[in-house]
Amino acid sequence: MPEDWSSSVDLHLAVDAAGGRRAGLERALRAAIAAGRLAPGGALPSTRALAAELGYSRGTVTAAYDQLTAEGHLVTVPGSGTRVATAAAPASAPALPDAPGEPAHDLRPGRPDLSAFPTAAWLRSTRRVLASAPPGAHALGDPRGRPELRAALAGYLGRARGVRADPARIVITSGYAQALGLVAAVLRDAGTSAIAMEEPGHFFHRAIVGRAGLGVVPLPVDGEGARPEGLDRAGAAVLTPAHQYPSGATLRPDRRRAFAAWARDTGALIVEDDYDGEFRYDRQPVGALQGMAPDHVAYGGTASKTLAPALRLAWLVLPAHLVEPFAEAKLLADAHTQSLAQLVLADLIGGHAYDRHVRASRLRYRRRRDLLVETLRARAPHVRVQGVAAGLHALVLLPPGGPDEDEIMDRAASRDLALMPLRAHWHDPADRPQGFIIGYSTPLASAYKPALDALCAVLA
Amino acid sequence: MPEDWSSSVDLHLAVDAAGGRRAGLERALRAAIAAGRLAPGGALPSTRALAAELGYSRGTVTAAYDQLTAEGHLVTVPGSGTRVATAAAPASAPALPDAPGEPAHDLRPGRPDLSAFPTAAWLRSTRRVLASAPPGAHALGDPRGRPELRAALAGYLGRARGVRADPARIVITSGYAQALGLVAAVLRDAGTSAIAMEEPGHFFHRAIVGRAGLGVVPLPVDGEGARPEGLDRAGAAVLTPAHQYPSGATLRPDRRRAFAAWARDTGALIVEDDYDGEFRYDRQPVGALQGMAPDHVAYGGTASKTLAPALRLAWLVLPAHLVEPFAEAKLLADAHTQSLAQLVLADLIGGHAYDRHVRASRLRYRRRRDLLVETLRARAPHVRVQGVAAGLHALVLLPPGGPDEDEIMDRAASRDLALMPLRAHWHDPADRPQGFIIGYSTPLASAYKPALDALCAVLA
Repeated sequence: MPEDWSSSVDLHLAVDAAGGRRAGLERALRAAIAAGRLAPGGALPSTRALAAELGYSRGTVTAAYDQLTAEGHLVTVPGSGTRVATAAAPASAPALPDAPGEPAHDLRPGRPDLSAFPTAAWLRSTRRVLASAPPGAHALGDPRGRPELRAALAGYLGRARGVRADPARIVITSGYAQALGLVAAVLRDAGTSAIAMEEPGHFFHRAIVGRAGLGVVPLPVDGEGARPEGLDRAGAAVLTPAHQYPSGATLRPDRRRAFAAWARDTGALIVEDDYDGEFRYDRQPVGALQGMAPDHVAYGGTASKTLAPALRLAWLVLPAHLVEPFAEAKLLADAHTQSLAQLVLADLIGGHAYDRHVRASRLRYRRRRDLLVETLRARAPHVRVQGVAAGLHALVLLPPGGPDEDEIMDRAASRDLALMPLRAHWHDPADRPQGFIIGYSTPLASAYKPALDALCAVLA
Repeated sequence: MPEDWSSSVDLHLAVDAAGGRRAGLERALRAAIAAGRLAPGGALPSTRALAAELGYSRGTVTAAYDQLTAEGHLVTVPGSGTRVATAAAPASAPALPDAPGEPAHDLRPGRPDLSAFPTAAWLRSTRRVLASAPPGAHALGDPRGRPELRAALAGYLGRARGVRADPARIVITSGYAQALGLVAAVLRDAGTSAIAMEEPGHFFHRAIVGRAGLGVVPLPVDGEGARPEGLDRAGAAVLTPAHQYPSGATLRPDRRRAFAAWARDTGALIVEDDYDGEFRYDRQPVGALQGMAPDHVAYGGTASKTLAPALRLAWLVLPAHLVEPFAEAKLLADAHTQSLAQLVLADLIGGHAYDRHVRASRLRYRRRRDLLVETLRARAPHVRVQGVAAGLHALVLLPPGGPDEDEIMDRAASRDLALMPLRAHWHDPADRPQGFIIGYSTPLASAYKPALDALCAVLA
C-alpha cells in the first residue's frame, strides 16, 4: 500500500541531533505540532517513510513516535497509521511586559542603599553555614523557622530593641507583608472584624489586611504619633511607634501606655511594625512598645531595611496564645521561610557582623539625613520637613497655595525622578495635606547628590 | 528634704557596664521592672541618690531615667519623683516545645538525600551572583520573580519536560504549597467552588485548598492514574500525571487527552503538580500534560526534590489569562520570593550544573530503587510494591489479613523508624487498602541500608 508521502514531503523537520537522533526527532515533532505545522488530526508519515527520508533507522523513528504517543500528542488509529491528536491550537499568549527599568533618580522609600549590601560578610557566612549545618537544615522543619535564628533574634531584639523575646514565641516569616497577612487571617478566624490602622499609613498594608477579610478603622496621627481614638470599633491595631510611616513621628510615651492599656483591658492585639527601629540619629533608639505588654503586642521586625528587601526575612514575636494558630497559618501559607537565609542571618548576628553593619549604616544614613535637611533648607525653604530624627525616610510637606503633588509628579517624571506622593497613604484623601515621602536611603551612594539636585529642581 | 532611700537600699541593680554605664544602667532598670523587682507604681531613688550609690555621675542616671521614661516604663509625677509606670506583670509564656529530633531511620517521602545537596556548586553560583548582580537584584521587583530565572526555566522546562513556557507566564513561588494556595484563592475569587483532587492524594494539599475556601471532589485513582470521573462537579482539578502521589502510577495517554478536553470544553483549570517529573528510571521521562493544553493547565514544578525543600523555590507556568490575578495574589501574600536563591538557581541552570546534578541524582536514586525492590522481594515477599518506575517514593501495599498499618507503625516506632502510612491520604479512609509510602530518597547515603533493614524487620 503506498504511504501517504504528502505530509512528509512538505514537512520541514529541522532535527537538531546533537543530543541524539531520537531526542532530536522528538523535539522537532513536538515543535512542529506546537507551531501547527502538523495539524490536529493530520497524518504523519509512516515510520518507514520518515526513517528513509531522514536517513535514520526505523527503530529510531518508531521510538520517537511511541514517546509522543505516550505523551498524548500522537494517536495510532487502526488502519490509518499515526495521526496528530485532535487538540485546538493554543491561543497566542499575550506577553505581559516585564517591569519597567530603574529611573535615573529614585527617592521612593522602602529600601536601603542596595550597593551597601554586605556581600563579603553574607558570602562568608553562607560558606560557614553550608559547611557546618546538619543535613536536616535543608529540610522543612518547625514552621516557626530555624531555632538558630530564633535564638539569635531573641538575644538581639532584647538587647537592641528592648523586646521581650522568647525563641519559642518567634516566627520567621517571608517578609513583614506575610506576617501581617497571616496575623489578619488569624484574627479574622478568631472573630475580629476590624483593625485600626494609622492614617496616613501604608496603603499596601491596608490592601493586605483587606484581602484577609478585615475592615479598617482609621487611627488619627499627629506630630506625636497615632492617637488612641476610635479604638472601641476595632479588635486590633497596627502601629509604627518608633517612626510613624509615613509622617516620621515617634509615639509619645503616654500614648504608648494608653494603647497598651486598651489592649490589656479589651483583649485586643497590637501589631507593632518596627520596620526601621534600629535607625535613630539624635539619641538612643526608643525601645519597642512590646516591652510594656508582651502578652498583647505582636512585635514585627525585618531585615528589609538593614540588609535588603529581596531577602524576604522578617520575624514576629507573638503573645503566647497566638503562637500556635499563627504557626498553623504559616504552615498552610508556604510551610517555612527559606532556611539558608535564616541560618546566614543567625550567623551574622552571632558573629556580630550584623551589629557592625547596622552601626555603619546608621552613620551613613545620618549623613544623608543631614545633607537632605541642609539642602532643602537652602534650596527649597518653603517646604516643611518632618520625621528626620530616625528611620530612612522623611516627610516633605508642600505649602498650601503652591504647586500640588500632581504638578510636582509631572516635573519629576520629566527628570526621570521617582517620588512617592503622600496622596495614597490617606484612607480618605479628600482635602488632606500634600507632600512626598523622601526615601533618602534608596539612591546608590554616588547617586544621592544628583537625586537631591533633581528633587530641589522640581520643588522650587 | 531626705530622699526615699528604701527602694535603693533594697534594690539590687546588677549593672553590667561593659557597654557603657548609661546603657548598662538602663538594661538593669528594665530587667528589674520586668522581673517585678521594681513594682508598678513603686518609687525609684532620686537621681542624686542612685548616682551616689552607684558611684556614677548624676547626668548618667538622669539620662537613663529619661530614656526609660521615653519608653514608657517610668513616669515623673510632680512632687513625687520618678515612679515605675503602672502595668500588670506579664503572664509567664508557656514555652512551646521545639520540634522533636530526627529519627534513627527515616523512610518518609518528601525530600531528597539532603547530604547530596550540591554545596560547592551552590556556593560558587552564590559568589558569582553576588559579584555580578545589579544592586536592583536586592530590591523587590516584579512579583512574578527574577526575569533571569524565568528565562532559564522557560528553556529548561521546554527542554526537559516538554512544557510550553513563555517567561512572561512563569511565576516563582515560595514552594509549591504557596502556588497551590494562591491558585485556589484566585479560582475562588473567580467563582469556582470546588476542585477535584486525586484520592488517595496529598492531605497537606487538601488542607491548603480547604483553607482557601474551596470544596474538594475526590478523583478516583487506579493503576493508570486518575480517572476523569465526576468532573462535572468541579471547576478545576489537581493532577500528578508523571507519578501519581502516592500510588506512583503514570497517567495514561487517553486520560491525559480526556482531562485536557474537559478543561478546554468547560473552561476549567488543571493544576499539574510535577513534583518529581525529572526522575524516571526505565525510559525517558514522560512530558508534561501542560504541553497539550497550555491555555488550560497551570504547570507546577519545584526544586524541593532536585535540590532541597528548605530552599522554597518553585514555579508555576500559567495560562495567559491567569497571570495577572495570580501575580496580584502573590504580591499580597509575600510580595516576591527570595531573590538571591532565584538568581543562584538561574546560574546553576545556565551553567548546566543543575542538569548535571539532576542526572547524577537520577542515577543515585535508581540504584536505591533497585535495592528497595530486590530487598523487599527477598525479605518481605508478601507485600506489593508499586510506582517504582519513576520518582522518589514507592507504594508498599499490605496484604489483607496480615498486620495492619497501626501495628506496623507500632513496630516501627520501637525501632525509631519513621514511616508514612497510606491512611491519611484517602479523603475517606474507611475500608481502604493499607500500606506505606516509602521515600527511598530520604535517608542520607550511609543510612539507606540500615533503614531498609529496619523496614524489612517491621514488615516481616
